[in-house]
Amino acid sequence: MTSERSFIRQIRRMAGTLASSAVKTGIGDDCAVLRPKPGFELLVTTDLCIENLHFRRAWHPAQVVGHRCLARGLSDIAAMGGEPLACFLSLGLPANLPQAWANGFLRGLLALARRYKVQLAGGDVSSAPQITADIVVTGQVPHGKAILRSGARPGDRIYVTGSLGASAATLKQHFAGKKIKPEKSNPHFYPTPRLEVGNWLRKHHLATAMIDISDGLSVDLAHICQESGVAAIVSSNKIPIGKNADLELALHGGEDYELLFTASKRAKVPSHIAGVAITQIGEIRNRRDYSSAIQILGDNGRVRALHQRGWEHLKSNAESGAA
Amino acid sequence: MTSERSFIRQIRRMAGTLASSAVKTGIGDDCAVLRPKPGFELLVTTDLCIENLHFRRAWHPAQVVGHRCLARGLSDIAAMGGEPLACFLSLGLPANLPQAWANGFLRGLLALARRYKVQLAGGDVSSAPQITADIVVTGQVPHGKAILRSGARPGDRIYVTGSLGASAATLKQHFAGKKIKPEKSNPHFYPTPRLEVGNWLRKHHLATAMIDISDGLSVDLAHICQESGVAAIVSSNKIPIGKNADLELALHGGEDYELLFTASKRAKVPSHIAGVAITQIGEIRNRRDYSSAIQILGDNGRVRALHQRGWEHLKSNAESGAA
Repeated sequence: MTSERSFIRQIRRMAGTLASSAVKTGIGDDCAVLRPKPGFELLVTTDLCIENLHFRRAWHPAQVVGHRCLARGLSDIAAMGGEPLACFLSLGLPANLPQAWANGFLRGLLALARRYKVQLAGGDVSSAPQITADIVVTGQVPHGKAILRSGARPGDRIYVTGSLGASAATLKQHFAGKKIKPEKSNPHFYPTPRLEVGNWLRKHHLATAMIDISDGLSVDLAHICQESGVAAIVSSNKIPIGKNADLELALHGGEDYELLFTASKRAKVPSHIAGVAITQIGEIRNRRDYSSAIQILGDNGRVRALHQRGWEHLKSNAESGAA
Repeated sequence: MTSERSFIRQIRRMAGTLASSAVKTGIGDDCAVLRPKPGFELLVTTDLCIENLHFRRAWHPAQVVGHRCLARGLSDIAAMGGEPLACFLSLGLPANLPQAWANGFLRGLLALARRYKVQLAGGDVSSAPQITADIVVTGQVPHGKAILRSGARPGDRIYVTGSLGASAATLKQHFAGKKIKPEKSNPHFYPTPRLEVGNWLRKHHLATAMIDISDGLSVDLAHICQESGVAAIVSSNKIPIGKNADLELALHGGEDYELLFTASKRAKVPSHIAGVAITQIGEIRNRRDYSSAIQILGDNGRVRALHQRGWEHLKSNAESGAA
C-alpha cells in the first residue's frame, strides 16, 4: 500500500467530479458541502463492511466488494423512495494489502456510483488489521414524502420486487466449497439497488411502508410489523424464488436488496415497475388477533408462525456443516 | 457482548430524542431523515477510529474513546463555521468485549452529543476483530457561507485558537510508560471542539480560510497553503504552547482540535472569542516567492523551512524509542 496521503490524492483523482449540482465542495476540505434541492429533506444511511464477516477475499473479487459496499447504501435510499446525492467512504486497509486490491475496490464502487450519478464527496483513510469499509450514502426526498417502515395498516397488501434467495444460494455454494464465477448477472456479486422502483412508488403515492431486504424476508417483514404495530401473513406459493434458491433461502436468505413494501388493498399496483417484476405475497393483519407477528400459509393449506432467521443463521449452519 | 439486535435497541434507548427539529426520523428506519433550515447547506464529515491505532484500551477509558470519537467530527463542523445537526455511528466490536466497555463508550459519546444538541440518528453495528468506530457528523451552514481551506490570500494573517501540543505531550508521556489520569481538563482525553469560535468567525465574516488542527500545525497549515495556492511564514516565539508541551510538540503534535484560520490584515480579530484565546502566529505569503511553502522565523532571527511532520511521526519515533 502507498502512503495514506498519496492514496487520498489517488481516490480524489479517481472520484473526479460528476455533473452533480448537489455537491458544492467534495474531497479536500474538513467537510463536504451539499446543497439538496429546496423543499427536499435529506436522507442519511451508513453500512459497515468488514473482511471475513461481510465478504471474503477468496470468494469476492475487489471490484465486487466495492460494488456490494455501495449497493447496500443505495438500497437504503431506494427503500425510502429517495434519490441518491453523494457518498462518503471510510476505509481501513491492512498495510500489506496489494495496491491492486484497493484500486479494484474503488473501481467497483465508483462504477456503480457513476451509474446513479452519486459523487464520492469525502471520507477517511486509515490502516486497519482487516479490510474495513464504512459507506455513508446521502439522498434527498421531498418534504414529508419519505416512505417509512411505520406506515403499514391492517388490510394492506404486501409486495416484493424481483425474486428472493439467489444471493443466499450463491453464498451456500461458496460455503459448500464450490468456485463460483462472479458473473455480472448474479445478484450475490452485483446486486442492483432498486432506486427506480422506490422512486416510482413514492411519486405515485402507492407504498404505505417500505424496507429493503438485506437481512432476509422474515427479518425485514418483522421490522415493518414492529415499526407499524401490525401483524402479517404471507403465502408460501406466492414468494418469487430466485435462481438456484428454494423457499427456505427465499424466506431467510439475505442480501437480495429487493424492496418489500405494502400498499392499500385498493391501490392498483402494476405487475412491473421500471422493468422489475412486482409480486403480491401476502397481507397485513391486525396485531392483536395473532399470537405471532408473522404467519405463513403453506402449500398444504395450513398456517404456521414464520420465525425470524436471517442470513447469519444460514452462515452459522453452513459453518457447522449443517447447510 | 449482547446480540446485535438488542445492542441496537439499547443504543436507541440511550440516544433518546433531543429537542432537535432537524431530525424527522432517527434510528429505526432504512435511513435517517433530516430537515436542515431553509437556505442552509449541509455539511458531512466522517472519521474512522480503530483500536491500537487511534486509541489504546490501556490508556484511554471507554468514555474517553467515545468523547474523542465524536469530538473529531464536531471539530470538522467547527472548521467550516457550521452548526452540528446529527451524528451517525458505525460500530464494529469484538465478540469478547465486555458490555461495560461498549456502554461506557456510548455514554462518553452521548454526553458530548447532548452538550451540543446533536442527535445520534442512525448507524450500523457489526462484530469486528478490533474496536472500530466510524463517526459521521452532519451540520448546516447558510448557503455559500462555509469557510473553506481554499480562501487564504497573500497578506492575510494566520491565527490559532487556544494552545498547541498538550495532547501530544500526554501521548508522549503514555509512550514513556507513565500512567496519566484522564482528567476532564486534559485536552488529550477530553478535547473541546471549537464550535462557538467557528460560528462566531463565520457570522462576523472574519476568516478567509479555516481548518482544525488534527494532524499537527505543520501539516494542517500546509493543507491551507495547498488548497489556497499560497505560502506561509510563522514565528516560533508566537506559537501558544500547551501544558507540558514544547515548540516541537506544538508544531507537529496532532489532536489538539484547535482552529487554524486566516483573516485579512485589516480585519479586527479579538484576543478572545467565546472565552477562547486567539493568537496571531504568522502571515500568508505569495507562493512563487518562496522555495518552501511554509517557513518558520526562529528566536535567532533566522528563517528556515518548516517541514510537515504530523503526530504519526511522533508516534513512530516513540515506538522506536527515539522520543
